[in-house]
Amino acid sequence: MITRSATPLLAEKRVAHLHDFPLACGRDLERVTIGYETYGRLNADRSNAILVCHFFSGTSHAAGVYHPEDALPGWWDPVIGPGKAIDTDRDFVIAMDALGCVRKDHPHGLTTGPATVDPVSGQPYGPDFPPLVVSDTVRAHRQVLRQLGITRLKAIVGPSYGAMQALEWATRFPDEVEAVVAAIGLEGFQAREIGLYHLMEQAIRRDPAFRNGRYSADTPPSEGLGLAIGLMLWSSSGRAQMVDTFGRRSAAPGRNPAKEPTARWAIEEWLSQEMGVRAGFVDANAWIAMLRTCMAWDLAEGFGSLERAVSAIQARVLLLPALGDELVDMAHHHDRLVATFHATGKTVEVAPLPERFGHLAGLVDIGLASDALRTFLNEE
Amino acid sequence: MITRSATPLLAEKRVAHLHDFPLACGRDLERVTIGYETYGRLNADRSNAILVCHFFSGTSHAAGVYHPEDALPGWWDPVIGPGKAIDTDRDFVIAMDALGCVRKDHPHGLTTGPATVDPVSGQPYGPDFPPLVVSDTVRAHRQVLRQLGITRLKAIVGPSYGAMQALEWATRFPDEVEAVVAAIGLEGFQAREIGLYHLMEQAIRRDPAFRNGRYSADTPPSEGLGLAIGLMLWSSSGRAQMVDTFGRRSAAPGRNPAKEPTARWAIEEWLSQEMGVRAGFVDANAWIAMLRTCMAWDLAEGFGSLERAVSAIQARVLLLPALGDELVDMAHHHDRLVATFHATGKTVEVAPLPERFGHLAGLVDIGLASDALRTFLNEE
Repeated sequence: MITRSATPLLAEKRVAHLHDFPLACGRDLERVTIGYETYGRLNADRSNAILVCHFFSGTSHAAGVYHPEDALPGWWDPVIGPGKAIDTDRDFVIAMDALGCVRKDHPHGLTTGPATVDPVSGQPYGPDFPPLVVSDTVRAHRQVLRQLGITRLKAIVGPSYGAMQALEWATRFPDEVEAVVAAIGLEGFQAREIGLYHLMEQAIRRDPAFRNGRYSADTPPSEGLGLAIGLMLWSSSGRAQMVDTFGRRSAAPGRNPAKEPTARWAIEEWLSQEMGVRAGFVDANAWIAMLRTCMAWDLAEGFGSLERAVSAIQARVLLLPALGDELVDMAHHHDRLVATFHATGKTVEVAPLPERFGHLAGLVDIGLASDALRTFLNEE
Repeated sequence: MITRSATPLLAEKRVAHLHDFPLACGRDLERVTIGYETYGRLNADRSNAILVCHFFSGTSHAAGVYHPEDALPGWWDPVIGPGKAIDTDRDFVIAMDALGCVRKDHPHGLTTGPATVDPVSGQPYGPDFPPLVVSDTVRAHRQVLRQLGITRLKAIVGPSYGAMQALEWATRFPDEVEAVVAAIGLEGFQAREIGLYHLMEQAIRRDPAFRNGRYSADTPPSEGLGLAIGLMLWSSSGRAQMVDTFGRRSAAPGRNPAKEPTARWAIEEWLSQEMGVRAGFVDANAWIAMLRTCMAWDLAEGFGSLERAVSAIQARVLLLPALGDELVDMAHHHDRLVATFHATGKTVEVAPLPERFGHLAGLVDIGLASDALRTFLNEE
């Protein structure tokens, strides 16, 4: 699924700093650190900057490799690089960590969030980190871009949580972004999604090792966190891919889970392995904070209605929904968003991703959107 | 949603016993107790018996009330009773507990399962209860029916897990059942459903109070069990109903979960309450056993293919799928089952339930299927 060019893009993590950053909740962050990566070069009139925003558990490592021998490139490498849909020979691409980025294996220190040290107390924020909303990350990214001399973006692109940021930006700062590519995105969390994320949060909170967020680095709530991750993985994976890959196979040949108490199904073994491995890469408090940021997200917030929010958008918009998405149901989110664009007299382009990988098509199958993405970014 | 007739049907729990009952796994149960209820009267030629099979967390209390002042009647009361679709003035209705019934608040003792006492050890079976498959319950019910003098059924009806039993019976003992009504049913668990049930099982197993199933009655794994129940409730509830009922409302007026760390959304409060209450009614080992029975279920088992299994059915079949079902996806299960009936030259009748309540339409909205059910049972 992941294509590698013959000479991979070399990525380097950089860090930007903000001071006394005001959050939507009313509290300030005295110091903010944000990790980012850039690919390509900013042109003389600073008109070729494309911001890439990451998904729930992603980071700013969107493309390329840190070292030629890295096993895997960044998460949207199939569409970011020299000659690719987001062409780094032509455009200057900036990928930035969201505030509260959940990864704790960041190669050059952490982007500010629950796992980082509160400069006031000298201790990690932990559960005391203030609640974040999507617009906090949007405003933080905007300040970092200004430090880089960028006041207007050619495009903002991203999948899932990244799509939320891209849409939010287009409504909040409509004259600063020319184009938006929202992959596997939605217009706001509704009761069904909030309920699922509540269960993920409960999976972590009910692990006694969580200790109300006061766990130590040595004894994190790995069991609860793994369960939450399993739920995210299950709900974002495609039905077709799960059925094709695992079907009703036993995890071990010759053993029958229908008749042997200790035998397991192949899908169970896969989930268990992923839950164990992935829990080691993320911080539980940060994961909960990101869940709550998503639950809170509503594009209509501050506008009174989705129609008014969409009316504010000046950017051209390309949506890349996934046909098999069961986390962000197309009929209830994508269709509503498209209908609202039409109702407000705006055009919107749509290029659906195939069904097979479910929500994760926005990552796994993004290369299949190369032509649509290239054409859209080259228009005008 | 639930209709009450002026003079409610009075229900009474009875108990049947079996001895040295052989299970599909190869082990025997020395003694089996099965709770059941009957409504109406068996006619002289014993041709009016209808078996009602219950859903995952249901019991044989399918209709009526134990006392006139009971708050709620049995779970399919809208369609079982005098003059109702399943007319107890005409038919003799038997509702039976499945083996391993998960409820521990049974009014007259437990149907044999993990929470009951192993006559060999004198202790509750707990995690040592042998693995059950759907055909075990079907064969046990068949023996109980023979004790009642019934060798042929006018119909077998039931929702969800009950539909699995009805379909299984029709393939295993095709000349003993004249009609099948399978509501919100499926032809077998596939990787996606097995994965979800694995996560529910893990929610229980990862609760330290579970102690590998050796918990005491006083300290059950309520947190993990509640989480598993929350997952079942979320996945079987309807998207439309959740959005309409809870939307993006805060649990408390004037409080904003997007900005206040301790504020919660209305859907969260509802889930938390249900998780807490419902965990008190069921046994954790029994819940896991039922999950694994479902994971194992495949109508094709023993036939080599779904086509051959369906070919074996002689009964007339009515399917009542739910249009908004996201637990048993219609496009991947119901449609496959219908296509298989057609491919084998069999007729099958279909009367869809409305979208609103999701999978739970098979319980909440069953009254809307009254006409279809009545017509189907009166045919021939």
